Amino acid sequence: MAQEKQWFRVQTIGYVRRPGTGETARDEYFDPWQESFLEVDERWEDGLIGIEEFSHLVVLFYLDRAQRRRTAGEPRQAEDAHGLTPVGFFSTRTPKRPNPIGIACPRLLRRDGNRLYVEGIDAWDGTPIIDIKGYYPRDELRPDVTIPSWLELLWARHDAERG
Amino acid sequence: MAQEKQWFRVQTIGYVRRPGTGETARDEYFDPWQESFLEVDERWEDGLIGIEEFSHLVVLFYLDRAQRRRTAGEPRQAEDAHGLTPVGFFSTRTPKRPNPIGIACPRLLRRDGNRLYVEGIDAWDGTPIIDIKGYYPRDELRPDVTIPSWLELLWARHDAERG
Repeated sequence: MAQEKQWFRVQTIGYVRRPGTGETARDEYFDPWQESFLEVDERWEDGLIGIEEFSHLVVLFYLDRAQRRRTAGEPRQAEDAHGLTPVGFFSTRTPKRPNPIGIACPRLLRRDGNRLYVEGIDAWDGTPIIDIKGYYPRDELRPDVTIPSWLELLWARHDAERG
Repeated sequence: MAQEKQWFRVQTIGYVRRPGTGETARDEYFDPWQESFLEVDERWEDGLIGIEEFSHLVVLFYLDRAQRRRTAGEPRQAEDAHGLTPVGFFSTRTPKRPNPIGIACPRLLRRDGNRLYVEGIDAWDGTPIIDIKGYYPRDELRPDVTIPSWLELLWARHDAERG
């Protein structure tokens, strides 16, 4: 089988814009639900026609300020109801991955030409976008999903901290 | 802002395996719900530890047999309840995109070492995988999603054809 080609190239099609935040504002409180916009290169603008009829998008972006992972490394020990459980990086949302690609499913508020105004994208200002798709319930909606108990515990703690 | 770098490299971390199907079996009936498996390179195997506690995955794959899109092109005219409506390529799941990256959210049946057995991945045998994440309801589940009427009509027709 033709499987020699191990590397592929991807191109930036636009950038995440978060007015009022710095590109490297790592320490300030980051609210993914802040309104931001996806500025798509004008070259691709006609590809956006009609996307405003979707309530949500699937956005892929390249985490250009993350370090690429070189080895699987040791799983981290996550706390769950029964003690500690080992968790490999694929189970997490760490940006340190073999391919530092992030995904978000933001709500689409409106389109203004080549700008898509969204809520719910967890990416810094200036992050390169590599794909945008409408959110297709048949492909992305999994209402019967279940998650590991360490993740439930983690989220419960985050919620408690935020009040 | 440092936005000169327009291209990035992504690497294959494994392959989609669909036993019994050919790599280029484009004409045969293709059932995404057939059981298949994700064969992850052994180099990354320790990153999979614990992923079997998720019921579903998010899988990104590189559509290596698709042609990369060079221009936005004309939107296609899709039929909806009111006539025809223009639909740009970002609204569709065409593999002909600026970056031919596909996404799937398959059910994870079981893990056997570096193999993840799944149901619900719409990719041919031999497709290069570029990322695997656990499906996080907070990030991917959007129960209040709405879609364009042309897409509802299209799916209703597909369902009627399949009986």
